Amino acid sequence: MEKQDCIFCRIIRGEIKSDIIYTDDNFIGILDINPEVENHALVIPKKHFKTILDIPSSLGNEYFDAIKNVSLDLIKKTKADGFNVVFNNHESAGQVVNHVHAHIFPRRKNDGRKLIVRNGLKDRGK
Amino acid sequence: MEKQDCIFCRIIRGEIKSDIIYTDDNFIGILDINPEVENHALVIPKKHFKTILDIPSSLGNEYFDAIKNVSLDLIKKTKADGFNVVFNNHESAGQVVNHVHAHIFPRRKNDGRKLIVRNGLKDRGK
Repeated sequence: MEKQDCIFCRIIRGEIKSDIIYTDDNFIGILDINPEVENHALVIPKKHFKTILDIPSSLGNEYFDAIKNVSLDLIKKTKADGFNVVFNNHESAGQVVNHVHAHIFPRRKNDGRKLIVRNGLKDRGK
Repeated sequence: MEKQDCIFCRIIRGEIKSDIIYTDDNFIGILDINPEVENHALVIPKKHFKTILDIPSSLGNEYFDAIKNVSLDLIKKTKADGFNVVFNNHESAGQVVNHVHAHIFPRRKNDGRKLIVRNGLKDRGK
């Protein structure tokens, strides 16, 4: 279950270099090549699934474990005191690579950032 | 494992009214009382855990199932063609209620919204 032309499948096959920070039987963690924040990481199943809806529920325990492991590593490494975990599912939700991935954004108190669903160009003041 | 003064524990105990849209053995789905988008929902474990790091991995399969079920219901109900799943872990990451919850944001193509980690008041142009 892999796709020839999927960039994440190619990273997993070792055809494209990436900054791999975690690996286990079914998941890898990499640093995002276009980071939104410092040490923005992705946790990706080795098998190709498009969105969270396509992941077999039997992988859920392991996916949580992988997300927790990567998050704990990042917290330790970056001295973050919080983190966001984000799945964008389908193009309308901002999914760019059609191979499911959890974004991990390490955060710090007063880092001046806020995760929002922005309404167009207007700041909704929330 | 529940907390007297936690708003989500109180909703789960039936002490506070909420718009409950899903329930199973270990999770509930409710509509957010301060929605960021239409039909902004939350998927919440019935037991009190603070963040994703505190959830036993053995609940992962079921948590994925609950998130998938709520998302599919919302897609059907709202004719969304995508959705974001977001966990804010700890105060610095925007967690307001200290009982872990997955935000589900139903999305539509060209809905004019974008999920971003905003840098202060500046639009980073991404």
